[in-house]
Amino acid sequence: MSAKGFFISFEGIDGSGKSTQTKLLKQALETAGHDVILTREPGGSPGAEEIRALVLQGDPDRWSAQTEILLFTAARRDHLERTIQPALDAGKVVICDRFADSTRMYQGLSRGDLRATVDKLHDLMIGVEPDLTLLIDMDPAEGLSRALSRNTVEERFEDFGEDLQAAMRKGFLSLAQEFSDRFVVIDGAQPVALVAQDILAATQKRTG
Amino acid sequence: MSAKGFFISFEGIDGSGKSTQTKLLKQALETAGHDVILTREPGGSPGAEEIRALVLQGDPDRWSAQTEILLFTAARRDHLERTIQPALDAGKVVICDRFADSTRMYQGLSRGDLRATVDKLHDLMIGVEPDLTLLIDMDPAEGLSRALSRNTVEERFEDFGEDLQAAMRKGFLSLAQEFSDRFVVIDGAQPVALVAQDILAATQKRTG
Repeated sequence: MSAKGFFISFEGIDGSGKSTQTKLLKQALETAGHDVILTREPGGSPGAEEIRALVLQGDPDRWSAQTEILLFTAARRDHLERTIQPALDAGKVVICDRFADSTRMYQGLSRGDLRATVDKLHDLMIGVEPDLTLLIDMDPAEGLSRALSRNTVEERFEDFGEDLQAAMRKGFLSLAQEFSDRFVVIDGAQPVALVAQDILAATQKRTG
Repeated sequence: MSAKGFFISFEGIDGSGKSTQTKLLKQALETAGHDVILTREPGGSPGAEEIRALVLQGDPDRWSAQTEILLFTAARRDHLERTIQPALDAGKVVICDRFADSTRMYQGLSRGDLRATVDKLHDLMIGVEPDLTLLIDMDPAEGLSRALSRNTVEERFEDFGEDLQAAMRKGFLSLAQEFSDRFVVIDGAQPVALVAQDILAATQKRTG
């Protein structure tokens, strides 16, 4: 990897195994001699975690879609400045569980008319995309049952059912086509070890 | 005033008498039969007040200029949706102590290179300007001594001295020229009753 670091994001529906796979990739890259940090969104820096709490706590209708996009973008800006960019500048590999594609997907789903606003706001205030985005693709029924069994579903999203998970899967696959230069779709239905193997192969192919 | 309401903002340096004058204008307009709400920024709605607290509390360096602009814009969007726009839609007069011009002025002062970003963000996420902006112009030495004596200086701004107040005055006067269609400059050095008289006259001229 180059001295300027390498930025990897993971995307996928709840229960797709992102959390497990980010840790396995971190271990594998460290074994290969890389300096790696693992972070997540929303959150990932002390300020961004405070903004995350402000967005996710309380009545789901307390913020409009527009205000929520602004708050998530503020959190992302803080996360980028305080956590991601310093690590990249130090030549590290940054593995981030969710990044801007999650915002694009969720807004595209609930308020499709706001997708252009999300993109303009990202260009104006963030302006950074991952070098590689790993989409762990999985059947929603399988993903949901895994998420529920592990109780890892976001507070705000716990009422999401299988139909919504199916729409999210479609949304992510559509983003993978739109940003085909940096997306790699991984088959998440395989056993964990094989998913990890595919992820490491895709990462090594990009980083040399 | 028309059925769609009328939006008035007050701007000026600390101690210029905005707080007193917004209340006097509210009384005068109510006496004249108008339905009036008085609000302020940052804050002005429950959600915006929470964001205000997040920005203003703690270490002044905890947020970068860009993150702070995003948080203030999130607060403004919430304030606009929950407080200002519903009142305007109901045909009310909205008097707001500070609005987007304060953001323009502060950023223009500390990070002049961000003024274009502030404007683009405003156009993208807010898109509303007051019908009338009353700038209470005042000598900084006078304003600062008034502000300190009343202990009304913002937590974050309490170390601001006379030089900075002078730069802020200049910044506001420059905005008054830039947006001359909606700005009216009021001489704040006059006795309170005469300032109030000028403000009411300027308001009546615009609202008929």
